[in-house]
Amino acid sequence: MIQIFSRSDRDFDEKLAVIRNRGQSLDSAVEKSVGEILEDVRLNGDEALKRYTQKFDSVDPETYGISIDAGTVEACRSEVSARQYDALQRAADSIRAFHERQRRQTWIEQDSVTGNILGQRVLPLDSVGIYVPGGKAAYPSSVLMNAIPAQVAGVERIVMVVPTPGGEVNPGVMVAAHLLGITEIYRLGGAQAIGALAYGTETVAPVDKIVGPGNIYVATAKRKVFGRVDIDMIAGPSEILIIADEGADPRHVAIDLLSQAEHDEMASSILVTNSSKLAEKVSVAIEEELALLPRQAIARKSIDDYGAIIVAPDLLEAARISNLIAPEHLELAVAEPFWLLHTIKSAGAIFMGYHTSEAVGDYVAGPNHVLPTGGTARFFSPLSVDDFIKKSSLIYYTQAGLEEVARDVEILTAMEGLDAHGRSVSYRVGDGT
Amino acid sequence: MIQIFSRSDRDFDEKLAVIRNRGQSLDSAVEKSVGEILEDVRLNGDEALKRYTQKFDSVDPETYGISIDAGTVEACRSEVSARQYDALQRAADSIRAFHERQRRQTWIEQDSVTGNILGQRVLPLDSVGIYVPGGKAAYPSSVLMNAIPAQVAGVERIVMVVPTPGGEVNPGVMVAAHLLGITEIYRLGGAQAIGALAYGTETVAPVDKIVGPGNIYVATAKRKVFGRVDIDMIAGPSEILIIADEGADPRHVAIDLLSQAEHDEMASSILVTNSSKLAEKVSVAIEEELALLPRQAIARKSIDDYGAIIVAPDLLEAARISNLIAPEHLELAVAEPFWLLHTIKSAGAIFMGYHTSEAVGDYVAGPNHVLPTGGTARFFSPLSVDDFIKKSSLIYYTQAGLEEVARDVEILTAMEGLDAHGRSVSYRVGDGT
Repeated sequence: MIQIFSRSDRDFDEKLAVIRNRGQSLDSAVEKSVGEILEDVRLNGDEALKRYTQKFDSVDPETYGISIDAGTVEACRSEVSARQYDALQRAADSIRAFHERQRRQTWIEQDSVTGNILGQRVLPLDSVGIYVPGGKAAYPSSVLMNAIPAQVAGVERIVMVVPTPGGEVNPGVMVAAHLLGITEIYRLGGAQAIGALAYGTETVAPVDKIVGPGNIYVATAKRKVFGRVDIDMIAGPSEILIIADEGADPRHVAIDLLSQAEHDEMASSILVTNSSKLAEKVSVAIEEELALLPRQAIARKSIDDYGAIIVAPDLLEAARISNLIAPEHLELAVAEPFWLLHTIKSAGAIFMGYHTSEAVGDYVAGPNHVLPTGGTARFFSPLSVDDFIKKSSLIYYTQAGLEEVARDVEILTAMEGLDAHGRSVSYRVGDGT
Repeated sequence: MIQIFSRSDRDFDEKLAVIRNRGQSLDSAVEKSVGEILEDVRLNGDEALKRYTQKFDSVDPETYGISIDAGTVEACRSEVSARQYDALQRAADSIRAFHERQRRQTWIEQDSVTGNILGQRVLPLDSVGIYVPGGKAAYPSSVLMNAIPAQVAGVERIVMVVPTPGGEVNPGVMVAAHLLGITEIYRLGGAQAIGALAYGTETVAPVDKIVGPGNIYVATAKRKVFGRVDIDMIAGPSEILIIADEGADPRHVAIDLLSQAEHDEMASSILVTNSSKLAEKVSVAIEEELALLPRQAIARKSIDDYGAIIVAPDLLEAARISNLIAPEHLELAVAEPFWLLHTIKSAGAIFMGYHTSEAVGDYVAGPNHVLPTGGTARFFSPLSVDDFIKKSSLIYYTQAGLEEVARDVEILTAMEGLDAHGRSVSYRVGDGT
């Protein structure tokens, strides 16, 4: 049963802390094991990859190569219906359209007096690796969400790694890759896949950035290779927070809470409402809806451990509570969502109004479903085209421009005791000897 | 003496590897020590801060508080000349003007048929901590470069931490902070400063992001708290690469190489040229200029260990070599720098033409001098306003909009076995029961 409590409860802060701190413990055994796997892959390349893939995914290296060939991918087409294919295609189109809006332009500006030019150049990354989980958490939609922003940015080489337990590929994942034209696909998962992408092996050329969700081994490996390559974000368990007023349909709210809870036992689903009547009704509806769910066991555990209904005196206080949590997904199931928006400081994606369920945003609306989790929306942002570009500053000075600033450079470099810095300007303008 | 070699040398790759891999070894003793300090600060707050500050910086907690008060900052004004103050002010103005160009706008778009709204909201981070090194590497210009992009982004709380060995503050650093209106300043350095900013103590409220350069302890601490807060980048030793043709002045090139080398023994200074005549002349000029430098010992060690002049057959090959290194600073000291630019893939800042010394960009031109080092320009970018904002996706669906996509959401959620996701839409449009 979901717990109902209020902002004025004496143990409010402790209850919130349980939700906020879930999944934050570092596992030193995982750290050690991941470190060893990464080093092994770095030193032994393909041989290590085959060994781990046999051990963890039961993939026989005699039967399967590291690469998944075009024939295997093509064969998956027949296992996906035309309606499924078309739905994936339409989702891809929406996602592409939204991310096109995020494109950045190179700009330069010339000073009309000195002729100096300053600017910022934007280029796509050369190569990106996308980690796609295998087995039960293999989601075709994740392929679209991770790859399309990279394609819009103009990344030329997009590599996909996906574990294939027992050698079995997930047809939906393969078709999603095929639909996007991704052809470099490896049968790799876990820390060993991250090692291959970061260091390279005989078969897998290294990439500049690794994105995509994974289990604790994958997340730990990504953290460890950060700096050698870039990574998308440090992901934790996911959450939804719904702010609802008395006009919200309690069953809609209940189902939306459960659509987070069904993902993962560590997921958190929180309703904050100014209506105790709605709180009661949602609590009842959750129980009714739980009974209908195939993933009932997961959802129930998530609701019991990290679910909460919080009754707040008003919507402004509800927004303040939301800001404390900085949720990955925030629904504003209220009569005036665009008014309430101005009080919201941190949230990955904001679903506004009574008709906008999180699932719409997860699949077809267009915005990315890779979002900052576990309170990191305070400083991280949804995956976007920005994650797949690099910028360079451009600086061009004329002789006249240099003369104008020479004195200041000399003064400032002297303050910092960096003589060659100063001399690089003074010598050019004739002050040096 | 700087070594001269060519692309066709048999050991070219090994020589380049020495430069590229410098400073990449992880120090497990540092790791362990930093982990202990962070945990101590997390658990013991101010008491731990005072203990470490006394131990590492010889600052007596009876004499000095953790905060640096307004009076101390104000008193530094008299130690900085009017010319110095004005030079800092003009540099700040240029930096602000450049970074104003990087501002991002919130956007929304409404579908004229369904009324659906999609958008991306941009907000500043709430709070940012800026680490400023103390002692000999205390640079007022770093205060400007780290704080101004945060101010342009609109960050309300900007906190500065700076170690004060023996209790001594650096007047230039204090005046730079004063000039920008930064008033929350703490007498803290090392891993303990990072711990205070990430976890908070009785005196120091935690921040959302930590930026700024530091030694190996600071860098390791930043990596460890990444995810709890955001950090700017994983910084390594810095470098300059100059591509020069026969039209370049050998002495300008030599001084610019040395302006990198004087920073740090681990710095790398590389000239790539298509003129063996220039190569010889620069080599001679380096020796002459070295003799004039107060920081000669540091610069010579850097030049000897990680300096190189590479003779390439032509400028395109020079650009390819630069792309292998992905330098922090790249000078194109060639007749047609804007032509050569299109061949350059990765570089933090690009200084174009014969008159644009790196030092101009480091101080007064306006672009940021916090740049990706050690080859990370392949995927990292200069510090910018983008580093101080967070984005949220905005999604508003109407009933008509939801009906239009309901079937696709049902198909895709069924493919992924996420029933509550599907039901959140089907129930709303009347397909559920």
